[in-house]
Amino acid sequence: MSLPARLSLVTLGVSDIARARKFYESLGFTASGFESDSVVFFDMGGTALGLYGHDPLAEDAGVKPQGEGFRAVTLAINLASKADVDAGLAHAQKCGGTIVQSAREVFWGGYSGYFKDLDGHLWEVAYNPLCPLNENGLLTFPAPEKS
Amino acid sequence: MSLPARLSLVTLGVSDIARARKFYESLGFTASGFESDSVVFFDMGGTALGLYGHDPLAEDAGVKPQGEGFRAVTLAINLASKADVDAGLAHAQKCGGTIVQSAREVFWGGYSGYFKDLDGHLWEVAYNPLCPLNENGLLTFPAPEKS
Repeated sequence: MSLPARLSLVTLGVSDIARARKFYESLGFTASGFESDSVVFFDMGGTALGLYGHDPLAEDAGVKPQGEGFRAVTLAINLASKADVDAGLAHAQKCGGTIVQSAREVFWGGYSGYFKDLDGHLWEVAYNPLCPLNENGLLTFPAPEKS
Repeated sequence: MSLPARLSLVTLGVSDIARARKFYESLGFTASGFESDSVVFFDMGGTALGLYGHDPLAEDAGVKPQGEGFRAVTLAINLASKADVDAGLAHAQKCGGTIVQSAREVFWGGYSGYFKDLDGHLWEVAYNPLCPLNENGLLTFPAPEKS
């Protein structure tokens, strides 16, 4: 037995589903239509993004809902150029996101910044020349160097 | 301007990259080969999973590294049957994961349980008859009901 390398769904716990949905729709995402008052899904091109109540999500996972500070998880949208990163972050800010890291050249050779959503979830917007996007916008990794 | 509905990368902050890598490899994931001592990527079929140091991830995002408790984010691997969910959770436990929610029938019509990884990141393993997996293992959403 092994688990398939598959990420079906990333679910974010949020305090107000309708407000969070509106924020992500304003970013440019389209809700799947498969939803209710208590859950919303966005098709992110293979992996889905879900919005669910913060406390119900903890309850579903069987853990306590209390938590604070850095969540040790970031989500990233990679774009095709530095200019796109600047425009993407500006758009997220206009939609109500908070820029926590302005876009800058980073040590690994790319260009990236971060915003947080209305519930504090961290999103990186990045240009990564080492991992180009394919025709479907999916990240591609270079082949390992031969040793 | 809008942001594309795209999830290029989900990065988990971990305390020990080598240990976390070994855990995810034991689950069944294959590292991309595009990596270093400080970062590892797994191709999850479109979206990549990254492992990066907990504190460096906070620093990259421009936020404080302190945090505790529920992170309000869960990742899910959907499988094709209840038996697969049971086997998947048992495998994760054998690999060193901790079951935080045993698999059970859930109110939305599926069957799911949760484990946490060595750093406390929550993974759901689920069977969802409402959103079947396509031939590539990707979640599909039913069309919205006409009103």
